[in-house]
Amino acid sequence: MPHWKIILTYDGTPFNGWQIQPNLPTVQGTLAHALHRITGESVLPQGSGRTDAGVHALAQVASFTLAAPIPTANLHRALNRALPPSIRILAVEQVPEGFHARHSAAGKTYEYRISTDEICSPMLAPYVWSYHLPLDLATLQNAADHILGTHDFTSFAASDPDLTTRTAQSEESPSIPYPLTRTIHHSSWRRDDHLLIYRVTGTGFLHHMVRNLVGTFVEAGSGRISADSIPTILAAQDRNAAGPTAPARGLFLVKVEY
Amino acid sequence: MPHWKIILTYDGTPFNGWQIQPNLPTVQGTLAHALHRITGESVLPQGSGRTDAGVHALAQVASFTLAAPIPTANLHRALNRALPPSIRILAVEQVPEGFHARHSAAGKTYEYRISTDEICSPMLAPYVWSYHLPLDLATLQNAADHILGTHDFTSFAASDPDLTTRTAQSEESPSIPYPLTRTIHHSSWRRDDHLLIYRVTGTGFLHHMVRNLVGTFVEAGSGRISADSIPTILAAQDRNAAGPTAPARGLFLVKVEY
Repeated sequence: MPHWKIILTYDGTPFNGWQIQPNLPTVQGTLAHALHRITGESVLPQGSGRTDAGVHALAQVASFTLAAPIPTANLHRALNRALPPSIRILAVEQVPEGFHARHSAAGKTYEYRISTDEICSPMLAPYVWSYHLPLDLATLQNAADHILGTHDFTSFAASDPDLTTRTAQSEESPSIPYPLTRTIHHSSWRRDDHLLIYRVTGTGFLHHMVRNLVGTFVEAGSGRISADSIPTILAAQDRNAAGPTAPARGLFLVKVEY
Repeated sequence: MPHWKIILTYDGTPFNGWQIQPNLPTVQGTLAHALHRITGESVLPQGSGRTDAGVHALAQVASFTLAAPIPTANLHRALNRALPPSIRILAVEQVPEGFHARHSAAGKTYEYRISTDEICSPMLAPYVWSYHLPLDLATLQNAADHILGTHDFTSFAASDPDLTTRTAQSEESPSIPYPLTRTIHHSSWRRDDHLLIYRVTGTGFLHHMVRNLVGTFVEAGSGRISADSIPTILAAQDRNAAGPTAPARGLFLVKVEY
């Protein structure tokens, strides 16, 4: 049976996250519904990882198997017709059966956007964290440098009690609670007009990890903690050692590597 | 009693238009609710004109009177605190009692945005008309040139039967059914990367007028009608002579002049 890989972009605003839930609009559920409309088949597309409610994707990856033999271009066109404008399919490709959007992923890139405008445009508001205290770019970067390399990121993983037991705070391997070690290859801040943009690439990310990193970097960038306290926070292996969780709406899944 | 003029920007997506309606989120209703929370007073801010559901504003103007004497800066700050991020107050000013956001308006500027991307970004989709047939910029401009000056715009006014009787299709003078004559000072198309942007300035606009103009210009730009048929359409004084109504989501109220 044909096995498919799709690349999709979505606006997280109208969705209760990626993962299918009864009676709530989700990206996975909307995709499954579209596939059912097109093929009559009930399949649940597997994403490269869940995104939380309000988190956006520039290029999420999903995989699924269909019984029906459909030409690639037709499936691509039919999906974009069946889906709402808030989800667009960028690419469709037939792949070997062994491919799994989550298990096969080798790395991911996220971006986080902070608006420093005094009054944040309503048209931008769903896509940024509107932050009004002064943030020092060099200090944000000093803090971000400390996470490069391989570390145990327990301090930056979601502390939701249900998630600890249910998914072991790991997007990639919900059934394996440990290790909470990840390798970060790229971690940088830049200013783009009135936006501060953080870009991070790594082998994988724990639940809430990017948002907790950004929330902590902002503590440093605003002067409430030292940028050089990041190694101590990592070493503590305790969520309470780190800063608050940055809002979901500023986060974009930018790329998944295989 | 202090009389106020405010300039506000909003994302029309979550609202059922400007005008207050029972049990539906509207911009006017949300503003009235915020003013009530701040002052305890029940006032209905008057806008420079209604915007339809899904239409955005970069700088709408509203006016109202409050009994409470509040410093300007405090009212500005309190409003932005009480309002959702989808509405932001850009300016607050005390004005003479004779000022009325609608009656005092001398001119308005609107922009309409069309995306010509094959796949329209979900993050852009609420703010553009995603249009996939080729559109010729020079032909759009030729069509747009024909509306410069003073014309009877009956052919481009909403044909909703309820609106004809209720508001005489006029945003500015709901109680006066005629004239349907307006003067257009500026009417131009430009390309900005993957967007086609129409900007129009005039003494006033009938209900749906900008969206009906854009829908008709696009008929010309895509080659279905001649750009030079616009004068004939104007002369017909018949809504059926013009093209379809362009979607609300591409329309922005840009400026109101007094």
